[in-house]
Amino acid sequence: MAEQWLRTVLAELYKKSTTTRAEILTRTGLNPASASHAFQHLIHYGVVLKIGELHSRAGRRRELLRLNPEAAYVVAVDLEASPIRFALTNLVGDIRCRWEEEVDSRRMLDIGRIANGVEMVSRTLSGTERERVLAVGISRPGVADGDGLVTAVNLGWKDFPLEKNLASVLTLPFFVENSARTFVLAERWHGRAQNRDNCVYIEVGKGVGAGVVVDGQFFAGHTQMEFGHITVDPAATDLCKCGKRGCLEAITSSASLMRQYAEQQGGDAGSWASVGEIIERARQGEAAATAVVDRAARTLGLAMSHLVALFNPELLILGGYVVSAEDVFVPRIREEMERHVRPWMGKYELSVSGLGVDIGLKGAASRAFYGVLNDSGLLKQLCYLEQARHAPKRRSVRARGRKAS
Amino acid sequence: MAEQWLRTVLAELYKKSTTTRAEILTRTGLNPASASHAFQHLIHYGVVLKIGELHSRAGRRRELLRLNPEAAYVVAVDLEASPIRFALTNLVGDIRCRWEEEVDSRRMLDIGRIANGVEMVSRTLSGTERERVLAVGISRPGVADGDGLVTAVNLGWKDFPLEKNLASVLTLPFFVENSARTFVLAERWHGRAQNRDNCVYIEVGKGVGAGVVVDGQFFAGHTQMEFGHITVDPAATDLCKCGKRGCLEAITSSASLMRQYAEQQGGDAGSWASVGEIIERARQGEAAATAVVDRAARTLGLAMSHLVALFNPELLILGGYVVSAEDVFVPRIREEMERHVRPWMGKYELSVSGLGVDIGLKGAASRAFYGVLNDSGLLKQLCYLEQARHAPKRRSVRARGRKAS
Repeated sequence: MAEQWLRTVLAELYKKSTTTRAEILTRTGLNPASASHAFQHLIHYGVVLKIGELHSRAGRRRELLRLNPEAAYVVAVDLEASPIRFALTNLVGDIRCRWEEEVDSRRMLDIGRIANGVEMVSRTLSGTERERVLAVGISRPGVADGDGLVTAVNLGWKDFPLEKNLASVLTLPFFVENSARTFVLAERWHGRAQNRDNCVYIEVGKGVGAGVVVDGQFFAGHTQMEFGHITVDPAATDLCKCGKRGCLEAITSSASLMRQYAEQQGGDAGSWASVGEIIERARQGEAAATAVVDRAARTLGLAMSHLVALFNPELLILGGYVVSAEDVFVPRIREEMERHVRPWMGKYELSVSGLGVDIGLKGAASRAFYGVLNDSGLLKQLCYLEQARHAPKRRSVRARGRKAS
Repeated sequence: MAEQWLRTVLAELYKKSTTTRAEILTRTGLNPASASHAFQHLIHYGVVLKIGELHSRAGRRRELLRLNPEAAYVVAVDLEASPIRFALTNLVGDIRCRWEEEVDSRRMLDIGRIANGVEMVSRTLSGTERERVLAVGISRPGVADGDGLVTAVNLGWKDFPLEKNLASVLTLPFFVENSARTFVLAERWHGRAQNRDNCVYIEVGKGVGAGVVVDGQFFAGHTQMEFGHITVDPAATDLCKCGKRGCLEAITSSASLMRQYAEQQGGDAGSWASVGEIIERARQGEAAATAVVDRAARTLGLAMSHLVALFNPELLILGGYVVSAEDVFVPRIREEMERHVRPWMGKYELSVSGLGVDIGLKGAASRAFYGVLNDSGLLKQLCYLEQARHAPKRRSVRARGRKAS
């Protein structure tokens, strides 16, 4: 059984809730004979379910297939905001149970609390079910350097060796991904970017970042993409937590909006308002709030026009505080983008995310699934390839399979 | 003979002047048995040459292989500047003959002149040699919209259906590519970016654009990348030929430098100077020239910092007028980039191109080669697969090969 066939078939099944063999063959270009082995195996071991039949006019039956949602589980962890959130999800992302806890951004998040959260959501499963929890997907805020040292202000991490620390406390395999990227995974899987092969998700909240998909492939630059830290206004005095001035994040993060609003009013303690309050006051036409919102929207629009010029997405999805303030932000962002994007750079749509508060968990679950697909050992576990080997007939296949992998 | 094996082996041989079978197998992960067919075939038909042997201590001989430079020819066309340039090159990019002609940017370039240039450089070949000219590679300036309509001011083209027109005058297959992308191909093949899997080439001349390679793959966004038309200074009044103000190209193109310099001096006719003269005056410390150069360098540095944040290249190569003014431009560009790039965004080197005036022709030849590799019919022609089919044994292989292609 070539792992690549299983991988390709499972990736297609993951994207669609139901499909047929013929549709998968058409979309993947897999050889029917090769794919047939993969289908047989996956159905035999219950990873894929036949859920009905389509009848064509010629009388040929086509089986409707879907992933067996309960074939495996993953733990999803979302560290983007407080509370940090944990969920046990099945293979198609349905949340089976949750665990949340508040974090104090003035103190460093203890890695043991992540291990504890994973345990809290896993313990609801029976012993045999627990064996089917394959991996943990973790959506993290902040930035990582080339050596994997993570700096995330709201978790109190500075150059923190996250993966090394996780390895010492987690028994399950894990996959860590930057939040903006897990968010775009969630949008592709469950949200507005389904079937959109060229799209960008822009998170605008505590942090600002982008996840980019080009021609169906997740794009992350050579090592990482730092959209939030492009200098979008070199003359600005706004100091970013990265140490620069005039970064996109320095002007448009939720903390920056609050600071700017307070400064507009002389900076006394009573002038602090939450982002929600600032947005509401802008809706009512208050000058100071309008000025702050206007600057953030135009700065976002300019930076997003760079993404259009460089990546030509057909869809840009905004997340974070913009979601509940679409009426205030999107027209201003659109107007600014239209100033900077010429028609020949391509058509694009602008939208806000519809996934709500679970976007991080959904994305983390999706990241775990792709992690499983691309790890030879975990793929074997998901597909019961070890069991298949117990049959003597499969022995020679296994030997060859190992070499090729 | 699986075309994919031939394609993979040829692509590896193209990157190296000499190599061994073992090295190709290691780098490509090809199955030795499958690759062996490809090697045998390519050597038998003279597409690949054995040029010597390496002896290991264990006494095993390893054949040194290289592409046969004269196995095929391509025509390279560079439309970036005046004169437009044509060359007949062999498979490894050696220029066998040239043809150049001046163009008048006030008049629309007649497509017949491109056909004529291709004919001028091809006619030096004998009849049998001419059959080995496989394709034309064309490096074009300007921008193309989603429908392939090209706008290139210096060729007098506005929404010009270039490929449709070329198809009506050229008998050879052709591959058209944006100049910035052909330039990065040339750098990867012959220049500073050899063995650099993450690099950017930035052309700064009549037009401004970038060609980006990420993880060894040429990156072009969904449809195209328009680095020259990101709005880098929204407050600037500099009008771009694209209709916007404050584009990178509007501030840093050679025409813009000349305009800015004249404006600095009151704009009378006598104050026009060439870019070379402006650079020389900046070297001598003249205030007006220094101001113009300084603004261009800092604007480039800011825009290039965006590329670092989004693509993390290990190497950025500057071409165009910057090449002969490295002393004046590069320190200023570097200083500005250092203001905007934080260490955790990755390390990068900054360099100017060493390829000189032939960069467009080299890149166009390289584009033609990759076009041949990725076209089933042309690959067969390059590899004499048709000849192989004349043997009756191969008949069934052909029939299957056609269906698959």
